[in-house]
Amino acid sequence: MPKVVFQIEGSGPVTISCNPGDNLLELARRANVAIDAPCSGNGSCGKCRVKLVEGVLETIPSRHISQEEMEAGWRLSCNCKVVGDCTVFVPDIASAYRSRMKTADLSSPDEIAIFETCQEQLKASGIVFENQYRALVLEMAEPTLDDTMPDNERLTWAIQEALGVEKVEIPFSVMVKLASTLREHHFRVCVKGELKENTFRCMEISGPEDTAIVGCAIDIGTTTVTMVLTDLVTGKLLAKGSSGNGQIRYGADVINRIIEQGREGGKKKLQDAIVKETLNPIIASLCRSANISARSILRLCVAANTTMNHLFVGVDAEPVRMEPYIPSFFGWKGLLAGDLKLPANPLAPVLIAPNIGSYVGGDITAGTLVTTLWDADEMSLFIDLGTNGEIVFGNRDFMMSCACSAGPAFEGGDISCGMRATDGAIEACTIDKETMEPTLTIVGDAGQKPVGICGSGIIDIISELFRCGIINARGLFVREGSRVLRDAHGMGRYLLASAEESETGREVSINEVDIDNFIRAKGAIFSAIDTMLSAVDMTVDCIDRVFVAGGIGSGINMKNSVNIGMLPDVDLSKYQYIGNSSLTGAYAMVMSDRATEKCHELGANMTYLELSTHPGYMDNFVAACFLPHTDASLFPNSVQEM
Amino acid sequence: MPKVVFQIEGSGPVTISCNPGDNLLELARRANVAIDAPCSGNGSCGKCRVKLVEGVLETIPSRHISQEEMEAGWRLSCNCKVVGDCTVFVPDIASAYRSRMKTADLSSPDEIAIFETCQEQLKASGIVFENQYRALVLEMAEPTLDDTMPDNERLTWAIQEALGVEKVEIPFSVMVKLASTLREHHFRVCVKGELKENTFRCMEISGPEDTAIVGCAIDIGTTTVTMVLTDLVTGKLLAKGSSGNGQIRYGADVINRIIEQGREGGKKKLQDAIVKETLNPIIASLCRSANISARSILRLCVAANTTMNHLFVGVDAEPVRMEPYIPSFFGWKGLLAGDLKLPANPLAPVLIAPNIGSYVGGDITAGTLVTTLWDADEMSLFIDLGTNGEIVFGNRDFMMSCACSAGPAFEGGDISCGMRATDGAIEACTIDKETMEPTLTIVGDAGQKPVGICGSGIIDIISELFRCGIINARGLFVREGSRVLRDAHGMGRYLLASAEESETGREVSINEVDIDNFIRAKGAIFSAIDTMLSAVDMTVDCIDRVFVAGGIGSGINMKNSVNIGMLPDVDLSKYQYIGNSSLTGAYAMVMSDRATEKCHELGANMTYLELSTHPGYMDNFVAACFLPHTDASLFPNSVQEM
Repeated sequence: MPKVVFQIEGSGPVTISCNPGDNLLELARRANVAIDAPCSGNGSCGKCRVKLVEGVLETIPSRHISQEEMEAGWRLSCNCKVVGDCTVFVPDIASAYRSRMKTADLSSPDEIAIFETCQEQLKASGIVFENQYRALVLEMAEPTLDDTMPDNERLTWAIQEALGVEKVEIPFSVMVKLASTLREHHFRVCVKGELKENTFRCMEISGPEDTAIVGCAIDIGTTTVTMVLTDLVTGKLLAKGSSGNGQIRYGADVINRIIEQGREGGKKKLQDAIVKETLNPIIASLCRSANISARSILRLCVAANTTMNHLFVGVDAEPVRMEPYIPSFFGWKGLLAGDLKLPANPLAPVLIAPNIGSYVGGDITAGTLVTTLWDADEMSLFIDLGTNGEIVFGNRDFMMSCACSAGPAFEGGDISCGMRATDGAIEACTIDKETMEPTLTIVGDAGQKPVGICGSGIIDIISELFRCGIINARGLFVREGSRVLRDAHGMGRYLLASAEESETGREVSINEVDIDNFIRAKGAIFSAIDTMLSAVDMTVDCIDRVFVAGGIGSGINMKNSVNIGMLPDVDLSKYQYIGNSSLTGAYAMVMSDRATEKCHELGANMTYLELSTHPGYMDNFVAACFLPHTDASLFPNSVQEM
Repeated sequence: MPKVVFQIEGSGPVTISCNPGDNLLELARRANVAIDAPCSGNGSCGKCRVKLVEGVLETIPSRHISQEEMEAGWRLSCNCKVVGDCTVFVPDIASAYRSRMKTADLSSPDEIAIFETCQEQLKASGIVFENQYRALVLEMAEPTLDDTMPDNERLTWAIQEALGVEKVEIPFSVMVKLASTLREHHFRVCVKGELKENTFRCMEISGPEDTAIVGCAIDIGTTTVTMVLTDLVTGKLLAKGSSGNGQIRYGADVINRIIEQGREGGKKKLQDAIVKETLNPIIASLCRSANISARSILRLCVAANTTMNHLFVGVDAEPVRMEPYIPSFFGWKGLLAGDLKLPANPLAPVLIAPNIGSYVGGDITAGTLVTTLWDADEMSLFIDLGTNGEIVFGNRDFMMSCACSAGPAFEGGDISCGMRATDGAIEACTIDKETMEPTLTIVGDAGQKPVGICGSGIIDIISELFRCGIINARGLFVREGSRVLRDAHGMGRYLLASAEESETGREVSINEVDIDNFIRAKGAIFSAIDTMLSAVDMTVDCIDRVFVAGGIGSGINMKNSVNIGMLPDVDLSKYQYIGNSSLTGAYAMVMSDRATEKCHELGANMTYLELSTHPGYMDNFVAACFLPHTDASLFPNSVQEM
């Protein structure tokens, strides 16, 4: 049996035996070697690059690997069959899904402002920020021969006295440490738990100085996971972090992951990838950074799309994609942290923002909650740009939602130099019309060289290329110059950074295939908006407010987004970028019982429009696959400076 | 390092390395070799016999090992130090704690009668036999493209319709198998759960044919564990089983076990011994014999003494024996089967019959429940003969309880040929006054030869020896004959079976030390009764009824018990043997919500009399250490035929 050694950059080697003919990417997965493969191994994304160091691999040539690269040993692992012993180098950049966990600077005013604004807006709409979690410091008489009340009755009495409740519940997890905690702290302790009507349910007992009770809000994106810890009393943010979704090695989109989880042992594999490999390390790291114990986390909330919710809980997601499209749940209350062994109080409820349909999930109900469009007379459009694009339109009288398969372009997928908005990503760009020279804004410290392009950067670049007349309405290069290069087949590309200027030694550029891919993505978004408005007999003129959310960069240039025909051409003052509204919504739910209730109301009241079967959507989509649109009158403010 | 090989009878050899000077019994425990050691290794019980096969052991001589036995290699393992490599044989009889698990014959009318009588008596006292567990067979419409309700909503609706409830809770354990179970059974399923006010809490989902909902009643004795499975709807017994308490290798009495659990890792060790090694195999075996799945067990109830309850839950039991004697709990509601990983539905509550004091536990409240003495005008005495003796006295107006340290004599401990009431135990005996020949009743099939003597047998033998004038009031032999033997020091013994007549090839006899030990035990019981009656200014004449419980044999000869001054000399018609009332009480609790409530009321209302500090108890005890008593007027019906 051939032996394959994976030399993982920044990590030790992993050796695995296999059968001749085994696919190298499959083998890497079996060996738990993380290789980014957004297309799940069908050769289209070009992300699963490895370098052959020793031995041979039977390889199908790929447009993603140049002749020079091929000679240097570079291969797409999905295109390789093992034929004998070999050693391959797995570059860290290929392990992008493990992108360095980031703990955002919580002193950053922007970060805090989003959560503060969310609270204010929700409060203005009648959402009280109150929950039923309490930390009580109790001082009890130490037992004596004349006062021989057992520990649990002593504690019960003290709580009843402190809160005036009738019933006190002491679960197993508290009972087993009750005797030792009381004695260690001389019967002066802190009890944490939930107050519900006339009952206090203990969840934790600790020393009197440890009074933190903490909520954990989690946005599980198909690509990225983001999380905050918050003080359940004050609402203050305690820590924030994010990382890639570990499931990405099973496919960039939900469909590939549903297929994967349907295989033998797949549910556990996908669940482990999100829970054990992704969430648990972030929670642990945030607990350290906030200096709290995991058992102080008394409530969690997850906002995620329908598939992510199913994979997270570990229930079969196959029905999400298969007729008659019956998921296990839209809304479900009943999950506890202990059920999934999350590093939190085992009795902590894990709220799940309710799904609306197979492709409009809890991330959208949570986001809709944040917009407060449900409390306004004005008609609002809410667009969440993720791996899928989801759109909500409505006001206090009605709400409609739909999803379009924009593909992973906004998060850097399907784009040859695409990447997520991490260090080295070009997140904004202007181009000088005369010289065609770009001015780049790059994520990271000063002096960071470019690695690739993230979603917000792609919007800017395409808009600028179009404005400067470098590309035409079809996205083809129509000007020549030192920044415009062409390959042997004549395919044009725009050079953002040469091999020497880049961080990785590989040029960063955008080519006509990338632009075409992106135009389809933006076309999907705009045609979805268009179709939805038509469905309620409205036009873009009816839109009073537009909320744009998504983690495609630290912001999004609305003017450029309109310029390329992605977002409707309404007054820019109507636009509001609300960041990661899924996370903010989860934060609101974890902090406020009323917000949780409201979110479930939204889930129950929102109509779901299935675009794929909707007459007219396909035509709208085709019409939108131009810059800005085949019907230019829809974008009077779009500019191409000739 | 010396190597010790344990050759375990009926099992493979176990080898362990150790340091010179290590105690052999300690070493066996480290190696998980089960050796019965009721005295926990202080050399007094003589039960930890092993046979040296090869090598040498440094040995302290013991009165339990004769010179011949010594020469044949027999040793008390607690008296041996390892000095070099050696091989010892561990006879199966020494592994008595692993006594073959017994599944009682449920067709036995006696077995069933006890539970039926219990139900009738409790019902007559107003205890309704109802609980809130339900199994519902539901038929739902299969989903179609026009009926796209998610699985959990579909199930919720069906339950709401079937029960008219408002709220349905679907926990994680049901959610994860919901999609597959619904589809496998074409949306016709059985849902099991708990109906509480307006809420149905699902606990299990299964195919429509599996409608069993089962309760499990457990009596955890210090020595023996007994268990029944019962149909939660009909109350029918489904299976019954028992085995030794696996903790016995850490000591026969509660004090030794509390000391052991206080050591590093001790809590887990003692908990594993009862949960993993003892309860789990019995539950699994009963489930197989009743042909039900463990997840159908929706409620359990444990009746046990205070220490056993603490060790079972895994909370520190040290406070039970140390001043100021504050246990973690008397009554505690909050334990779930999943907390201890019992093989049952993880959401099944584990009811714990409430303790009253450090030495009067839930077995006694459960037993008191069964007697219905709390509902009568008559004054009742309730005596539970276990490793400890516990006594309750009272009626509907008051109840008082106390415990006396009778020691393990009733269960065969502290008696040279003592054993538990399993196959080969002499459980009854008459002696011919003239010939002094015994007539034995032996536990087991016809032809079973005697192995030893269990509690009920010891009572009979001593009573008969006394009646026949073979022993005097001090328990010393005063007649000679072929059945009365004496050792070199003149100590007398009565031969019940010679080496040839016995099952094991060792004679079965009772000697003066055994009789003395037993007289102390019976003296402890009677003096406790005496003291308690005095404490409420009453005498034996005030007793209207006497309930005797305990697993010391299949029954107990009341006349003989009175004859030796163990039980008060009242009209024998006032006596009722109620078998294992702890188990029957647990059965009532698991079946009936009202019985559970009542048991907690009893726990709260019963007074606890601490005998050890009670003036007069010591004098009463000394006076009771005669046959039948120093004050013979207390036992007018005691007979010694001169």
